[in-house]
Amino acid sequence: MRILGIDPGLRTTGFGVLEKHGNRMVYVASGTIRSDGETSLPSRLKTLYEGITEVARLYQPDCAAIEKVFVNVNPQSTLLLGQARGAAICALVLSDLQVFEYTALQLKKAVVGYGRANKEQVQEMVMRLLSLPGKPGPDAADALGMAICHAHGGDSLTALGELAPQLARKGLRVRRGRLVG
Amino acid sequence: MRILGIDPGLRTTGFGVLEKHGNRMVYVASGTIRSDGETSLPSRLKTLYEGITEVARLYQPDCAAIEKVFVNVNPQSTLLLGQARGAAICALVLSDLQVFEYTALQLKKAVVGYGRANKEQVQEMVMRLLSLPGKPGPDAADALGMAICHAHGGDSLTALGELAPQLARKGLRVRRGRLVG
Repeated sequence: MRILGIDPGLRTTGFGVLEKHGNRMVYVASGTIRSDGETSLPSRLKTLYEGITEVARLYQPDCAAIEKVFVNVNPQSTLLLGQARGAAICALVLSDLQVFEYTALQLKKAVVGYGRANKEQVQEMVMRLLSLPGKPGPDAADALGMAICHAHGGDSLTALGELAPQLARKGLRVRRGRLVG
Repeated sequence: MRILGIDPGLRTTGFGVLEKHGNRMVYVASGTIRSDGETSLPSRLKTLYEGITEVARLYQPDCAAIEKVFVNVNPQSTLLLGQARGAAICALVLSDLQVFEYTALQLKKAVVGYGRANKEQVQEMVMRLLSLPGKPGPDAADALGMAICHAHGGDSLTALGELAPQLARKGLRVRRGRLVG
């Protein structure tokens, strides 16, 4: 199964493609789509839409995972991010991809093992999990993290993460979405 | 010049098409695109995108005008509206239409003559300005209002509206975007 992860943003949208072979994950590609801040909003959304459409055409994923955003402290940023996310989701569904949504919390739990991980820890763990020669940029890392989150089964992982306190009492821990003794 | 006006929303998106012949405006079509609230967000955005694309294909407008939304009191609503607006703008630019943006204030000033007009007044004035046999629904009226706003020249009108206090002192008023003695 080939998964396309998307970290949407008006200025920079990260994408990451990986393949899941049984329990193994294989890196395929990652990068960013940038829009020119000097141009109009419609033109920026078009750049984003066409960029994602091109990535989908090029790498032919079987499904897509995109970050489920929550409201920002700044309402104007929330609106801009919403518009970018709307454009990104359109590009994915119009490329005939089923779109799965995961929160940043689910991503961090799936990739790092706990929900309060910072950006550097996500980059570090994405690099290790996919055996990359170097740390991917933050947007590409979040996009690859989305794909990893989906590869790990998404929601079931969160449920596992939420069991952490009970498991700890039994001497067990959840690490990278797996139980360790 | 044929203008497509869009009033974006995740649940209901209004559209309105009119033609401008010199100072005269001629109604072409209007309606709403509704998405099924029981389905997923990606599926709803796809419905919206495909609906607008179909309207653009069917009526072949020369340009489009869409409401420039501001942040809502409810941040979650702001995010949903942003996503719908992102999908709508993508459908317009991917249909090769130049997209103009006007605020609700500009719409009300262009259609009713003052910025605090309510929904009923907008519906009433859209009906009169376009010589419609009955009042259009609120979403279609807003969409037609957007097209009227663009037909009237958009920004220049607002500037005129802002002169209202000075003009009033000279015994002049701005009505439907025009100076009246």
